[in-house]
Amino acid sequence: MTSITSYINNNKDRFVNELIELLKIPSISADTAYKQDVLKTADAVKASLERAGCDHVEICETDGYPIVYGEKLIDESLPTVLVYGHYDVQPPDPLELWTSPPFEPVIKATDLHPDGAIFARGACDDKGQMYMHVKAMEYMTSENQLPCNVKFMIEGEEEVGSENLADFVANNKEKLTNDIILISDTGMIAKYVPSITTGLRGLSYVEVEVTGPNRDLHSGLYGGAVANPINVLNKMIASLHDENNHITIPGFYDKVEDLSAEERAEMAKAPFSLDDYKSALDIDAVYGEKGYTTNERNSIRPTLDVNGIWGGYTGEGAKTVIASKAYAKISMRLVPHQEWHEITELFKSHFESIAPKGVRVKVTPHHGGQGYVTPIDTVGYKAASKAYEQTFGKTPIPQRSGGSIPIVSLFEQELGSKTILMGFGLDSDAIHSPNEHFGVWNYLKGIETIPWFYKYFTEMNS
Amino acid sequence: MTSITSYINNNKDRFVNELIELLKIPSISADTAYKQDVLKTADAVKASLERAGCDHVEICETDGYPIVYGEKLIDESLPTVLVYGHYDVQPPDPLELWTSPPFEPVIKATDLHPDGAIFARGACDDKGQMYMHVKAMEYMTSENQLPCNVKFMIEGEEEVGSENLADFVANNKEKLTNDIILISDTGMIAKYVPSITTGLRGLSYVEVEVTGPNRDLHSGLYGGAVANPINVLNKMIASLHDENNHITIPGFYDKVEDLSAEERAEMAKAPFSLDDYKSALDIDAVYGEKGYTTNERNSIRPTLDVNGIWGGYTGEGAKTVIASKAYAKISMRLVPHQEWHEITELFKSHFESIAPKGVRVKVTPHHGGQGYVTPIDTVGYKAASKAYEQTFGKTPIPQRSGGSIPIVSLFEQELGSKTILMGFGLDSDAIHSPNEHFGVWNYLKGIETIPWFYKYFTEMNS
Repeated sequence: MTSITSYINNNKDRFVNELIELLKIPSISADTAYKQDVLKTADAVKASLERAGCDHVEICETDGYPIVYGEKLIDESLPTVLVYGHYDVQPPDPLELWTSPPFEPVIKATDLHPDGAIFARGACDDKGQMYMHVKAMEYMTSENQLPCNVKFMIEGEEEVGSENLADFVANNKEKLTNDIILISDTGMIAKYVPSITTGLRGLSYVEVEVTGPNRDLHSGLYGGAVANPINVLNKMIASLHDENNHITIPGFYDKVEDLSAEERAEMAKAPFSLDDYKSALDIDAVYGEKGYTTNERNSIRPTLDVNGIWGGYTGEGAKTVIASKAYAKISMRLVPHQEWHEITELFKSHFESIAPKGVRVKVTPHHGGQGYVTPIDTVGYKAASKAYEQTFGKTPIPQRSGGSIPIVSLFEQELGSKTILMGFGLDSDAIHSPNEHFGVWNYLKGIETIPWFYKYFTEMNS
Repeated sequence: MTSITSYINNNKDRFVNELIELLKIPSISADTAYKQDVLKTADAVKASLERAGCDHVEICETDGYPIVYGEKLIDESLPTVLVYGHYDVQPPDPLELWTSPPFEPVIKATDLHPDGAIFARGACDDKGQMYMHVKAMEYMTSENQLPCNVKFMIEGEEEVGSENLADFVANNKEKLTNDIILISDTGMIAKYVPSITTGLRGLSYVEVEVTGPNRDLHSGLYGGAVANPINVLNKMIASLHDENNHITIPGFYDKVEDLSAEERAEMAKAPFSLDDYKSALDIDAVYGEKGYTTNERNSIRPTLDVNGIWGGYTGEGAKTVIASKAYAKISMRLVPHQEWHEITELFKSHFESIAPKGVRVKVTPHHGGQGYVTPIDTVGYKAASKAYEQTFGKTPIPQRSGGSIPIVSLFEQELGSKTILMGFGLDSDAIHSPNEHFGVWNYLKGIETIPWFYKYFTEMNS
């Protein structure tokens, strides 16, 4: 039998080319204009799972985009790993900032990736990381190295809140029974510093609309005499943070768990250079909640960020107009114990309460999800840790991520199983940004590490 | 010879149809995509002046859009009236709010205009009001009723700051010599309440850009740890007004003239219903600077309004991104004595000074102009007042307008002559808004009133 390393050496060009084909399909779930492409991507994922050796693969319809389910059940006495991933991607705009078209993947060498990185929307998040599991599966089945049962559940709505996945999971508990859930949709601390994500932030995403006069007005004839929805929206949003950048929504912090000095000291041990961080982003200073470090601000503390704002004349030149309406998309990252429906309600009632006379405010919740923390003393974590030691030669560092995979806490609640977040991406991969990419080295390292997890997890369970 | 009233009765359909043809050309000066249409409009204006009896008409090239100049000089011992207007129009967006296409003029009856109003971008501002002068000229020349010399100066950059008109005026003082400047680019108090605008606000229009990180970032991985340019821009803009809606820019009010109690009492006499005002705009309350009435807020007080704002993801659905940049277009309406270059500088230095660490701010001045006040004891004002009495049967009310015609103060400075602002539009005409329109009655009333001004002004000067 062939070892995973030699199997990768013999097949790496094909592994990369197959991913590139998948990346060419613009599966943008947020934009209905791409509906056919999203559906086409689901079919491509189905075919890849069949080629990888799944015995049974199906496209499961939902009220939204379908979920691709695949399985290979070899022995019910053996443990079962459920792999979750998503085949949808973020919108690519602003397009003009991409150095190559987001859906025409190219391999370019970078300082961090001298051996090349694949540039395309979804290269890392999550087509690339999801496909690592498909290729690891291919190795295990073709080389007779599969030690346990495997189930795949790959969805197409992660970037828009996984709304239909929740129902699917609730209605298919039997089918999805498993001993551990394995997800690669997070990152690692640095290229040669493996880490396992032990915490995720929750999310509440809302859209707000402020309406003033019933039509756009001439700013000369009405300026100063009526509430300008844009000025008002700016004042309302500005008031959501105080001078220490604490969020001012009453009750927002009530359920936020304060970490002990020990836990914070432990976190502070993770390798981090503030100077490198600032220069990588080309900023002269970081900015955030008073009393917390950068790594704490983006992991263990909740946030409120405007993700988009628009109103009035945004074209070329000047237009002296007072807009009738102004809009903003606002998301809050939540920490474990903050209940996202509750936070959404707190935001809505507070935002409506601070609207001055002369405007009307509408708050529309988009989606959200709970945060998650996983203990590091479980079999799943230990097996993952051992797998990394095998392929990186060092013990991975447990780390809290600032990102959100809302579905993870729901998995535990509905299926009663823990999730292992084995991420191989890097912060510099620019996911959700122009020029998203994924190092070929990281991609192959993921394919190499995954089978070891199956091996150790099965051994530790027997 | 025919009286102006019967001449209008015999020709009104043609007068309306000629204006409709002019309105069909989308002369949007702010958007370079419409360059050919703007130039085409200049040619149409030139042809109309020739048909109206000007002896000499020319297209005067500038660094921007051309100025159409026309004249009929009958006797140098007689006074000369210089008519100013503009053939460019505001951008029509938001297009979806128009009930008929902005450049496909239609006549529709409204409550206020049972005899019909012409709906189109530019119907009132300023193609319609400018064309009243062309048709009045046609009457005077064809019926041998022209009592003095006339010069026309119709520009194509009023909606973008008249930047090249300033040079043109400075370089053509001889050609533009006149005794009075006549402009119809303002409004009247109500349909049967004639008024003459005696004051205009100045303008400073700037665009601001806030840059945070060098690329769009994932709001989960970076949220809370770096300055979000949109949140920062909101805070900066919000800080430009205090809790009383006074503008906080140091020195902003230094040169603002406080009107006497008598002057304010005089202003308060103009017919005005706050309830009608609010219901016309569908707002439950007005909003503005503490200590001033609505009519004071939009005429004798300076303002600061955001005319447009944009940044981040503004498409369908949700995108959890922290934008690299956020932008806003901001205009300040200024009152007489506030120097617009100085205010622009005050804004720039203040705005840059309040930028927090972690972002870079760029302020780009767009354009601006001085405010203007004209005394009511001049021959020009008296002639205009008498003309209105002739056609409306009542004495016009002098009123300060909140709008700006930056070029007016420059005319006085360069050409040494006063300007009479004879406006026939109504606030409800929705200039700069969707569904701009101009009452056919107002249009014809303007054509009827203008020749009387020529008559009385010439008589009073002899």
